[in-house]
Amino acid sequence: MPRKLNLNVGINTTGYLPAAWKYRSGNRHDIYDPGYYKRLTELAHRGLFDAVFFSDHPALMTDPNSRPFHTIDPLILCTALAAQVPDIGFVATMSSTYNSPYNLARRTQSTDIVSGGRLIINIVSSFNPNVAANFGSAPLPSRSERYAKASEFLDVAKKLWASWDPSREGPVPNEQFWDAASAHAIDHVGDHFTVKGPLNVPRGPQGHPVVAQAGASEGGIELAARHGEIIYCNILSRPAGQAFGKKVRDRAARLGRDPKGIRIVPGVVVILGETKKEALRKHELFSGAGSEDGLIARFIKENGIDPDGFNPDAVLDAERFIPDPNRLQAVGMGLGLSDLLTHEKLTTRQVVRRSEGHHRLLLGTAEEVADALIDLWDDGTVDGYTLQPPRAPDDIEEFVDKVVPILQDRGVYRSRYEERTVRERYGLPFPAH
Amino acid sequence: MPRKLNLNVGINTTGYLPAAWKYRSGNRHDIYDPGYYKRLTELAHRGLFDAVFFSDHPALMTDPNSRPFHTIDPLILCTALAAQVPDIGFVATMSSTYNSPYNLARRTQSTDIVSGGRLIINIVSSFNPNVAANFGSAPLPSRSERYAKASEFLDVAKKLWASWDPSREGPVPNEQFWDAASAHAIDHVGDHFTVKGPLNVPRGPQGHPVVAQAGASEGGIELAARHGEIIYCNILSRPAGQAFGKKVRDRAARLGRDPKGIRIVPGVVVILGETKKEALRKHELFSGAGSEDGLIARFIKENGIDPDGFNPDAVLDAERFIPDPNRLQAVGMGLGLSDLLTHEKLTTRQVVRRSEGHHRLLLGTAEEVADALIDLWDDGTVDGYTLQPPRAPDDIEEFVDKVVPILQDRGVYRSRYEERTVRERYGLPFPAH
Repeated sequence: MPRKLNLNVGINTTGYLPAAWKYRSGNRHDIYDPGYYKRLTELAHRGLFDAVFFSDHPALMTDPNSRPFHTIDPLILCTALAAQVPDIGFVATMSSTYNSPYNLARRTQSTDIVSGGRLIINIVSSFNPNVAANFGSAPLPSRSERYAKASEFLDVAKKLWASWDPSREGPVPNEQFWDAASAHAIDHVGDHFTVKGPLNVPRGPQGHPVVAQAGASEGGIELAARHGEIIYCNILSRPAGQAFGKKVRDRAARLGRDPKGIRIVPGVVVILGETKKEALRKHELFSGAGSEDGLIARFIKENGIDPDGFNPDAVLDAERFIPDPNRLQAVGMGLGLSDLLTHEKLTTRQVVRRSEGHHRLLLGTAEEVADALIDLWDDGTVDGYTLQPPRAPDDIEEFVDKVVPILQDRGVYRSRYEERTVRERYGLPFPAH
Repeated sequence: MPRKLNLNVGINTTGYLPAAWKYRSGNRHDIYDPGYYKRLTELAHRGLFDAVFFSDHPALMTDPNSRPFHTIDPLILCTALAAQVPDIGFVATMSSTYNSPYNLARRTQSTDIVSGGRLIINIVSSFNPNVAANFGSAPLPSRSERYAKASEFLDVAKKLWASWDPSREGPVPNEQFWDAASAHAIDHVGDHFTVKGPLNVPRGPQGHPVVAQAGASEGGIELAARHGEIIYCNILSRPAGQAFGKKVRDRAARLGRDPKGIRIVPGVVVILGETKKEALRKHELFSGAGSEDGLIARFIKENGIDPDGFNPDAVLDAERFIPDPNRLQAVGMGLGLSDLLTHEKLTTRQVVRRSEGHHRLLLGTAEEVADALIDLWDDGTVDGYTLQPPRAPDDIEEFVDKVVPILQDRGVYRSRYEERTVRERYGLPFPAH
């Protein structure tokens, strides 16, 4: 089998960029309308995407100037969509900090079974105090504690997913319903969890759901190396991407894992135009900045730079942009920029066109975007991408109609769904017993 | 609108009676086959049932002589089935002891939205130490603590379900996406839960999912009176049913609830025959007892009676059968028998034919069964039933083909689905803000 580009697409609410809803089709009630998500998934299916991706936080931000970005429970929504749209996979995000391993292992294995092997779970440890406040009076645990817990959480989940395997059934006497020896307790006793098992859902068509991981902080990379099969991250340049991939794969190898079982599919924000100039203009609008000066002003503000006498055409110093590892927000998301500046000499005017919402930004014609997508894929820096459309459905539709045919013509992207499960489609190994 | 009989049907695995699988169609792999549950739901849809019902325990019993009775997560399965089968409702059982209110409120409201208002949640407090062992090292909390927690759990869930209501939206300025004042924090601080809110899923088509309740112990009745809209219980006779209904409704009224918002739909086990005799014989087989003597022997054993010189034709003493309120098993399930014996003078030979799996047993021709179903419904003792078929699919199919047409001919049962939501179909009030 020749290697193929993998593509996921994020379909949360109105699209990835907070301000782009002003330029989208539809109305605000779309965000909690199951029919809307069905249309987006059908659109992604038309584009032959590997999976649709739902990020998540179990909390509602009530800032009047923001928009709700996470509403219907991702696993519930994916379960319903999988019953209505064939072939395509589903990435559902869920928290290891605010779920119990037994319930989560059971629910996800259930969705994997009812979807015929199309579930990817994106395990996050949650970093938002608004989330913590929905789950008791205790403050958010520290990042290191959350990651340690996430890792053990997945250890337990994997034991549970494998704990009842009907293929282990021996001969079953007439008077018995089943061979109960096909299920065994896991008797897990660890620092964070005590779980007896077995799970009351058998192994599914993928062995277990594919495990996605998104962290790029030290704890996140450790978790990705130990458990991640699909790695979602922000990679803004080839050298940064190669360094990141090597780091994760080396760490996996040191942990005794075959690094071939890891796929790197960073986020990418695509804004298409008939011309590059049109794409630049759409970027200024969809970002909410309004103009190139607006983009520069936003960069200055976001990075706490003194605007007096600031020269947007001076080369930036990478050191200045390394995120504080103790900051509250996701650390990994802030690393992309400093990684980029470490590897390329860029001015502010250049750098504001290189990323949006922390992800690599591709601006231009469909041909230019396809070239850029293939470029980092061709040499194995990445295995594919997670498209984050500024507007949904509009930017998904444009990508499917304009970029996908080019990728197909170049022979790097599928022309129909072939494999049955997402795991097979990603070429990931079937988990051992 | 003339009053109509409500009917749910339990569709767990191979049917309600543990030993009846030997006489069913299909094979043991049905129990985790989503296609099998789809066929059962379509069958129930053909029978115009209000809802299919999944009981649940999050644990797998590995007794080789039993069968797994709870496997695919009920809410996940119901979500997938609702996307494939129209009209019919879904009762999903879930534990208030081993879930957090925010996650559960979010997931259930999500399923209610994606199903178009067809979810009923059956909240149980879990009584099984095998369940506790899947959720940590702490033993099962006491029954009174579990019920207190369940009650506060539902208080929190109701606050969350109402916390974001887009119908409260005022005018939204052009530059804003929404009116954030349509959502408000709940700031719940109680004995068992601290939850800030708001929920990030808006109110759904039913206001909130319909709440079912099953306990018949003192704590269970208190919970039913406070929160239950649909009451699942075991009622073996008219006087026992009337006493139970009065108790729940009086308690609800004392708590300030309108008792009209309560529907009583006890479990019922139906075994049909061309003749009464054939039905009696099928009962002996499906129960696993093999004969009437076998039924009597089982009764003696289950109730810890000394078999020496026992006379199966002597009238039984009700006092002897009151369950210990401190027993580990569900107390309510054991109350049916003592209630029955309190109100009717019955011998062992008679009583073994009056219930199966703790529920009222109806044995006979389709006409006889329809008469018995209508009898307790006609005077308002019950509002309907939750059919527990000994075998699935066989006994559901027989009921749909033979009993449903009679109920329709008698004018007590619908001839098509009319209302949109389960709440409307049950005539239950829409929850206040």
